[in-house]
Amino acid sequence: MSKFISKKLNGLSAYVPGEQPQDKTYVKLNTNECPFPPSPYAQRMARQAAGGLNLYCDPECTVLASVAAEYFGVKKQNMIFTNGSDEVLNFAFIAFCDKDTPAVFPDVTYGFYPVFARLNGVPYKEIPLTDALEVSVKDYLAVKGTVFLANPNAPTGVALPLSAVEEIVKADPTRVVVVDEAYVDFGGESALALIPKYDNLLVTRTFSKSRSLAGGRLGVGFASEAIIEDLKRIQYSTNPYNVNSMTAAAGVGALLDDEYFKKNVGTIVENRRRLTAELKSIGFDVLPSSANFIFAAKAGVSGEALYLSLKQKGVLVRYFDKPRLKNYVRITVGTAEEIDTLVAAVKATLEEKL
Amino acid sequence: MSKFISKKLNGLSAYVPGEQPQDKTYVKLNTNECPFPPSPYAQRMARQAAGGLNLYCDPECTVLASVAAEYFGVKKQNMIFTNGSDEVLNFAFIAFCDKDTPAVFPDVTYGFYPVFARLNGVPYKEIPLTDALEVSVKDYLAVKGTVFLANPNAPTGVALPLSAVEEIVKADPTRVVVVDEAYVDFGGESALALIPKYDNLLVTRTFSKSRSLAGGRLGVGFASEAIIEDLKRIQYSTNPYNVNSMTAAAGVGALLDDEYFKKNVGTIVENRRRLTAELKSIGFDVLPSSANFIFAAKAGVSGEALYLSLKQKGVLVRYFDKPRLKNYVRITVGTAEEIDTLVAAVKATLEEKL
Repeated sequence: MSKFISKKLNGLSAYVPGEQPQDKTYVKLNTNECPFPPSPYAQRMARQAAGGLNLYCDPECTVLASVAAEYFGVKKQNMIFTNGSDEVLNFAFIAFCDKDTPAVFPDVTYGFYPVFARLNGVPYKEIPLTDALEVSVKDYLAVKGTVFLANPNAPTGVALPLSAVEEIVKADPTRVVVVDEAYVDFGGESALALIPKYDNLLVTRTFSKSRSLAGGRLGVGFASEAIIEDLKRIQYSTNPYNVNSMTAAAGVGALLDDEYFKKNVGTIVENRRRLTAELKSIGFDVLPSSANFIFAAKAGVSGEALYLSLKQKGVLVRYFDKPRLKNYVRITVGTAEEIDTLVAAVKATLEEKL
Repeated sequence: MSKFISKKLNGLSAYVPGEQPQDKTYVKLNTNECPFPPSPYAQRMARQAAGGLNLYCDPECTVLASVAAEYFGVKKQNMIFTNGSDEVLNFAFIAFCDKDTPAVFPDVTYGFYPVFARLNGVPYKEIPLTDALEVSVKDYLAVKGTVFLANPNAPTGVALPLSAVEEIVKADPTRVVVVDEAYVDFGGESALALIPKYDNLLVTRTFSKSRSLAGGRLGVGFASEAIIEDLKRIQYSTNPYNVNSMTAAAGVGALLDDEYFKKNVGTIVENRRRLTAELKSIGFDVLPSSANFIFAAKAGVSGEALYLSLKQKGVLVRYFDKPRLKNYVRITVGTAEEIDTLVAAVKATLEEKL
């Protein structure tokens, strides 16, 4: 840190993204990317936009908004597009949290929430998951503040049913509930249908996972018109042109090529089923995942040790340095071949230990 | 605003970008875009990146950083890349301003500075330009806080010489001076060479203007290693993957095609000379511009009236609703043909008034 940095940022420790090593080629199952390239149509749309980059992009993403409104069955005024869904989440921390309105989220969830809170000088309250690493709905009914729920949750992959989400949203109409649906396409129940019913609900989605656009950066928030107006005020106060022209075009292509999207999601769900079964057959506990990753633990094998051994064998997974999670690794669901490599490397690790 | 928005944002009025009308085609001289498409090499690099968007982009922009380090003659550790230069400016407001460290900038300058200040809850002090609409160096020598200077300034186009910038940076080594060089390539003197000498200097640049990538969103900050570390901490606390893969690739292509860049800048400088001469010949005062726009006024003609008349004639320029600027319009320097159209429309307006 420089001697100039504001005292308000003392001790701010940033989010640590999954490693992106440049030294050699790994089987990369550590950052929940999609193993399949973007839809050819999305690629073509993005490429076509490259020639017009001398002009500013459209701050309202008009074309993308039209296509998305039809695709998701919402009105344009109920959407905001951002530079990845991290950006709309940060906007929500800025707009709906302050010293009197803490952020509230599970103790085990997306690691960026506490970072957003600290950056924005917002107090936060972490509510422990149950022993089964699940969200306990009753803990969220009376709590004051702005609630952030990843559904499916990360890094567990466990999803809440829509009825449970609705119970939390409905319990207190004076607070905002943010439902982060980054992984919903892989098996969760979306809360999108609740938007017309509750003006205190913000649902966020990303194009990074199920739509293969992690490197393009496209997120979207859905909410009541008034909440979207607030978020757009933040957008126009930081970076009106936050979504570049190529990415907005890629987003259009990704939504229009629904067949490709459904095929890829189907493959991931099938691969997840097999990966889960294979790991269970060699003694792992695997949480029931509705995401494109699984969370697995084996008694007596530390997550860090397994991560290190797998890395040596050319496979990257992720472990978490938290006491409750020390036996777990998070494994992205890759292609069938990647799963074979991962399972073989896990088996080899277990044999070395014997 | 929704009933949920934090009280700290009461009265936040966002930045208003130049209009991007969708209703008809205008000669667009209102947002300081480059009239020429991006370098063919930049376009090709961006297109090639589209196929790999399923993987996250590189938060360190490693390839772009290597190319830029050589191009600008700095070390990698002295640079940060952002989603447009607005983002690095906002990071500087977050990192280096707080209730005890106000932001300081001219009363007539880039309209986003007060918006960043208000969003971040930072007090700010506006120092009046001289009657000639110039920055008076002596006003900045003793002032406390973090100084933001657009050089060349906007919307005036007037540049400070490097010696004046150095005087301000040197005057107080305990405060940060941010020099926003969005327009420097069109005739300003860059402060980049001062980076190794002063650890309190941050220079920001954009690829939006001289490199024709406004719609791609690419900015860069140059500073001492410690200041860059601070800014990266903000990056990693909001959006580590802030620059998407296609834009980072386009940036590489734009830097490597220096011939194209120099040719376009040369054309704009020549067109600016002619535009200035033509407007002076019909009685306008035109400030000496080092940017890709000019700031022009004619006694007795309000900027708003001229803007409205030109818009009716199919030409967009920008006027500013500030008492000191009420006779001015800001006109982006376009192609030779666009200048012909603009000058004809201005002449027609003046005749209508007679």
